[in-house]
Amino acid sequence: MNIVELVENMARAARQASFEMSRLSSTVKNNLLLTMADTLEKQTPRLISENAKDIQAGKEKGLSYAMLDRLTLDAERIQGMADGLREVAALPDPVGEVTKMWKRPNGLMVGKMRIPLGVIGMVYEARPNVTSDAAALCLKAGNAVILRGGKEAINSNLAIAAALRDAMKACGAPSDALSLIPVTDRQGVMEMLKQEDMIDLIIPRGGEGLIRFVTENSRIPVIKHYKGVCHVFVDETADFDMAEKIIINAKTQRPGVCNALETILVHHSVAATFIPRITATLTSMGVELRGDDSFCSHAPQAGLADEDDWYAEYLDLILACRVVDSLDQAVEHINRYGSLHTEAIITGDYVNAHRFIRDVNSSCVLVNASTRFADGNQLGLGAEIGISTTKLHSFGPMGLEDLTTTKFIVYGDGQVRE
Amino acid sequence: MNIVELVENMARAARQASFEMSRLSSTVKNNLLLTMADTLEKQTPRLISENAKDIQAGKEKGLSYAMLDRLTLDAERIQGMADGLREVAALPDPVGEVTKMWKRPNGLMVGKMRIPLGVIGMVYEARPNVTSDAAALCLKAGNAVILRGGKEAINSNLAIAAALRDAMKACGAPSDALSLIPVTDRQGVMEMLKQEDMIDLIIPRGGEGLIRFVTENSRIPVIKHYKGVCHVFVDETADFDMAEKIIINAKTQRPGVCNALETILVHHSVAATFIPRITATLTSMGVELRGDDSFCSHAPQAGLADEDDWYAEYLDLILACRVVDSLDQAVEHINRYGSLHTEAIITGDYVNAHRFIRDVNSSCVLVNASTRFADGNQLGLGAEIGISTTKLHSFGPMGLEDLTTTKFIVYGDGQVRE
Repeated sequence: MNIVELVENMARAARQASFEMSRLSSTVKNNLLLTMADTLEKQTPRLISENAKDIQAGKEKGLSYAMLDRLTLDAERIQGMADGLREVAALPDPVGEVTKMWKRPNGLMVGKMRIPLGVIGMVYEARPNVTSDAAALCLKAGNAVILRGGKEAINSNLAIAAALRDAMKACGAPSDALSLIPVTDRQGVMEMLKQEDMIDLIIPRGGEGLIRFVTENSRIPVIKHYKGVCHVFVDETADFDMAEKIIINAKTQRPGVCNALETILVHHSVAATFIPRITATLTSMGVELRGDDSFCSHAPQAGLADEDDWYAEYLDLILACRVVDSLDQAVEHINRYGSLHTEAIITGDYVNAHRFIRDVNSSCVLVNASTRFADGNQLGLGAEIGISTTKLHSFGPMGLEDLTTTKFIVYGDGQVRE
Repeated sequence: MNIVELVENMARAARQASFEMSRLSSTVKNNLLLTMADTLEKQTPRLISENAKDIQAGKEKGLSYAMLDRLTLDAERIQGMADGLREVAALPDPVGEVTKMWKRPNGLMVGKMRIPLGVIGMVYEARPNVTSDAAALCLKAGNAVILRGGKEAINSNLAIAAALRDAMKACGAPSDALSLIPVTDRQGVMEMLKQEDMIDLIIPRGGEGLIRFVTENSRIPVIKHYKGVCHVFVDETADFDMAEKIIINAKTQRPGVCNALETILVHHSVAATFIPRITATLTSMGVELRGDDSFCSHAPQAGLADEDDWYAEYLDLILACRVVDSLDQAVEHINRYGSLHTEAIITGDYVNAHRFIRDVNSSCVLVNASTRFADGNQLGLGAEIGISTTKLHSFGPMGLEDLTTTKFIVYGDGQVRE
């Protein structure tokens, strides 16, 4: 069978299985996830030996130490995957929730009920644990899922998917609701992106190249995440201790992630007092500073920022810094250079907190808290399938609810339209 | 200026204006819509004289009487457009609603707040009233809108858009939040569909050709509506009077619209009693019947249906008819041949009503009511920008809320991530 037929058949089978998945009770779905967790644990030796093939191939290809580390499965990481499945099993089931219901003048009761999206395609790179994490969330929300992982992890991914399907068969669940495309060249992705009659949503996770490729070639809706250029605005009434603690946390706790801080904006009226203090601390922690003229006049160790710095997602111990005249100018800077990801204000002023929350239309807007909280687990979604920086369907960290849609349900007693 | 520059400039100006729109209070937006209504009324003579150019051109091109009628503006229709604007002004403003809020263990308060989508592109054909209807909904939800109407109505649309922009200027609102592409060839649409950095959503309204063209060429998310193959399932416990009343209403009240009935499924245990009765009535009303073997055995006047009939959106006085063995078979038929639009069950049985609501994943599922209620106004959304038959973002009739998204808002008092 060639790749075209293979993907077509897989998508058709997934669509069929999705009808069955959509009707499973929460109890049945939870048992399924718990059985999957047990099966991963039981198949640990097999998963490790299949993973060894990927590690060997990776070494031969000269992958970096960091890449090889991300690729490696050991008993502890497999345990982590199993625990992840159990955590998703413990989350509330979004399917069937009636989010609201109202009565029409003619007596019709009209409501909106959460239902699964149908079939979800996940395209990802790197870590093999995404295979079980993504499967858990998609299945719990009553969907079928088609996975397409990176070529470096192909043997590991195939082994994980096979274990999960074993568990589905053991539970009598439709195993076609979980499949993995065994081909790792771009054609596998391309064929997937053409199945608009069978697949409802594509979620790409990985580098910008992968995400652009998927966006440009998909006929299916894509929920994507480009970059995170996160800002902290230090208002004139900011508590300096709090501002320092939050900036240090947001910039240095894990600089390589999308919700790490990239630019600070400081109100001019506190520039002379706050900048020397914060820059001394940042410099002592190895953070390189790039400021505008005004900022640099208070921080001799800072280099001069150019226009590119305002757009930059450094993902590194570098921070762009600017002095602004007002809250309005801070908002304008964020609207112009930001990526709609996450922004915070540090303020003691009620009116400014209120206005920042209202006027900044990024996916996550915080008052007096670190940008690092822009994460599904931290915000209380339970688990995260990704972060959307586009506004359609979902905006910001996505949990189980984001893998559902709503249908209208209408209860009548014979009403017809006049 | 060429069309490429023109659309780019329009989109950039709309993006800028959208920031201002997103911050307007409900009072300001409502006043704006009321001023627009007054302005349309005041400019009635000018709108009618511009419309006359389109009618003249349409006659010369040999447009059908029905097309010319749809194109025509008179004082009454302009009054209708003004009333439409006033109705949207009276609807609640979705922007700023906090749909939920919860507390995290570390004391953070996390909520989801409705915000405008940003810039919406409407691509439509035919009736010039869509220009003001769509503008009203997009602006009320705090968005900017770029309109691209059909070439038959270009002079009417330009005059309506100019009147609406006059009103915006008179109110001090950013008039770039409403613009109309003055070029009506496909290139105007193509350029619009490339502005993925400036436009957040495209809504096409019109024939299947237009919708496919937009879907296949857009880099921007599209919410679309293909067809409505709506079903009524007559269960074994159906009240025959109610079933007949609903079927007649759904099929004949307005056969040319997407929520009209196209296929009935009759439970075999009532086939012998219900089919002769309903077919006599339908035939007397001029409805052509196409049934499966079993159905035809109870209805001599029915022709034999073939596979294509189950997929057909007739939009005419034709009805496909099938006898099914069970509720399950009815659901399976709907899943296989349906268009995810609207389906109804007529039943007296609690369990079957419950199962039909749960198992049919169309955008609107009704018990004991006509499929003709699948409409934003009828369901109580206030006004309708379109109907989505794809599941992302919105599914089913779309109102003001569907022109918004939500951002996370987080209130802290100095929390950082451990």
